[in-house]
Amino acid sequence: MSSTAGLVIPCRAAVAWEAGKPLVIEQVEVAPPQTMEVRINVKYTSLCRTDIYFWESKGQTPLFPRIFGHEAAGIVESVGIGVTELKPGDHVLPVFTGECKECRHCKSEESNMCDLLRINTDRGVMLNDGKSRFSIKGQPINHFLGTSTFSEYTVLHVGCLAKINPSAPLDKVCVVSCGISTGLGATLNVAKPKRGSVVAVFGLGAVGLAACEGARIAGALRIIGVDRNPHRFEYAKKFGVTDFVNPKDHQKPMQEVLVEMTDGGVDRAIECTGNIDAMISAFECVHDGWGVAVLVGVPHKDAVFMTKPINILNERTLKGTFFGNYKPRTDIPKVVEMYMKKELELDKFLTHRVKFSEINKAFELMLKGEGLRCIISMDD
Amino acid sequence: MSSTAGLVIPCRAAVAWEAGKPLVIEQVEVAPPQTMEVRINVKYTSLCRTDIYFWESKGQTPLFPRIFGHEAAGIVESVGIGVTELKPGDHVLPVFTGECKECRHCKSEESNMCDLLRINTDRGVMLNDGKSRFSIKGQPINHFLGTSTFSEYTVLHVGCLAKINPSAPLDKVCVVSCGISTGLGATLNVAKPKRGSVVAVFGLGAVGLAACEGARIAGALRIIGVDRNPHRFEYAKKFGVTDFVNPKDHQKPMQEVLVEMTDGGVDRAIECTGNIDAMISAFECVHDGWGVAVLVGVPHKDAVFMTKPINILNERTLKGTFFGNYKPRTDIPKVVEMYMKKELELDKFLTHRVKFSEINKAFELMLKGEGLRCIISMDD
Repeated sequence: MSSTAGLVIPCRAAVAWEAGKPLVIEQVEVAPPQTMEVRINVKYTSLCRTDIYFWESKGQTPLFPRIFGHEAAGIVESVGIGVTELKPGDHVLPVFTGECKECRHCKSEESNMCDLLRINTDRGVMLNDGKSRFSIKGQPINHFLGTSTFSEYTVLHVGCLAKINPSAPLDKVCVVSCGISTGLGATLNVAKPKRGSVVAVFGLGAVGLAACEGARIAGALRIIGVDRNPHRFEYAKKFGVTDFVNPKDHQKPMQEVLVEMTDGGVDRAIECTGNIDAMISAFECVHDGWGVAVLVGVPHKDAVFMTKPINILNERTLKGTFFGNYKPRTDIPKVVEMYMKKELELDKFLTHRVKFSEINKAFELMLKGEGLRCIISMDD
Repeated sequence: MSSTAGLVIPCRAAVAWEAGKPLVIEQVEVAPPQTMEVRINVKYTSLCRTDIYFWESKGQTPLFPRIFGHEAAGIVESVGIGVTELKPGDHVLPVFTGECKECRHCKSEESNMCDLLRINTDRGVMLNDGKSRFSIKGQPINHFLGTSTFSEYTVLHVGCLAKINPSAPLDKVCVVSCGISTGLGATLNVAKPKRGSVVAVFGLGAVGLAACEGARIAGALRIIGVDRNPHRFEYAKKFGVTDFVNPKDHQKPMQEVLVEMTDGGVDRAIECTGNIDAMISAFECVHDGWGVAVLVGVPHKDAVFMTKPINILNERTLKGTFFGNYKPRTDIPKVVEMYMKKELELDKFLTHRVKFSEINKAFELMLKGEGLRCIISMDD
């Protein structure tokens, strides 16, 4: 056990006091982990669009003050009662959704949507006792997604931690804990393109490019990137993208453009924007007989997916995925191994780097749409 | 070669002279098969709803006079130039869609939607020369689906004939050539329920009951039949149906009823009615994480499939199928073998039997919704 086990740890955290206002580095107190909980020392965190979304809090129930952050890597500091799989010193990736290993979803080969630990964006407390482990002078600070990695120390349910190879560089593999796995798994686990396939990817942000990376790894012959930002094509070539289509350059719906480009349709399409028209285009651009479309992006709650039934009946498949169908504890360590074996390339996703004290710069970069992932180093 | 090879064969056929009017048994002349064509002696045919649909010709381009019929069994009489896979005397099932074995679809493991021989409801002639092989005193009579089995002799493209085990009783296996395989394959090839699954089937006509039969064969624990006709439940029990839901008995949408009945949703749903609301219910009643819905029924051309994207994103799968994803020449002989091995039970589908001269009785039975399949014996 570490010398801090069982004690409250005072440390730095970036606290969001109000929606859309810059985070403030504060001294917070982090309580010890309770039953089935683990306290970790966060080494690196990165920023994902989901953090921005709930920080801006447009349309969601505001829950402030709150410590955001969910894409990260760290080292176990201490464990609570009942935790047997992890021990102090283990290298871990926190995941925003969990794997209890007991429920029907965890026992199903096909699902990763754990009943107990499935993502919950509205909860600001721990499951065990309904309380927060963070406080400032006695005032509780809300958790976010059960991870809250914008803090030097954080407490998680053991089911939300993937134990990884201790040789893996934490400043790189931290991005595996959310966006990269989401896109990669959408391709490798759900779309499953065969070698020589034609794959279309809608949206060339980090998740979309991770979907392209999956297609590259699967041996796709042609990867067609669809994005409204023409500047993204050049960089996307690093991810195997061979063709670029900008919806702004066409009068016709994207599905018609793609069907014409590919003699009847693509073999697989992966939608990573959350735009409802893109979702429909992604489905309707796949070839009849064998085409599979996979939806990743989350649209506005009032959006409706609409298509003519003949598009379905002609043997197209439509699937949705959550976190690339990866089970956090079982599968994420294997994604890290893919990186260690140089099958998965991560460096090209890491475009910026800032110190923890400069975390608001990472927000600015993402709001400006610059780069893919900004690594925030906690040890500066 | 048979003594009739190369000659025009005069024989009886049931001709539809006008939309919706009783068929008339006429003496027709059947020309010899041309390149890649086969002439067969039809032994048994049955009636499928698709025959009724195009005979009624409500909404379709009327194409009369026409010889309907596509669910049948027969024996090869003679073959045209280039036909090497079949010879006179072979037992065959005609199929309304074909398998050329050369196109991208035929070469794909995933598709059965042959580019050359895919179902074409508007064509009344042979592909080879754009002419009919049927005539009455020189007047050409239109073909239907490339099969036209309401004739003692008919000519088909070789790609639309499945060569089957000569021991198989033709008066039973004739029903494998359309509806039964469509429902059976939707379950076994597309929905693929695991042993112990809960399966919902919308529509308990012949296709729906064949889907139930597939679920029974796959070892489903619970098969929930959904139909507006309460009289169908008793008979459906023979096909493994364990629960019956009548939409008329409920105020709520069917998906809500089924989700409540099954603690979160069924594992697989198969839609065999073509009603757009049933299609949506079938998709939304499957369990998140692993549920698969398969659409079989063909809806009105103006219908639109609509669902909230979250239903897809929560890891549900929506698939369409055509002819149960069976490739006619490659796979249909195997379905006949399933019957020969007593895995597939066909007798319970065969509820009526009439002589060819009484073919209009079969139409009356189907219009009244009585029974499942009426076998029409050509040799009476």
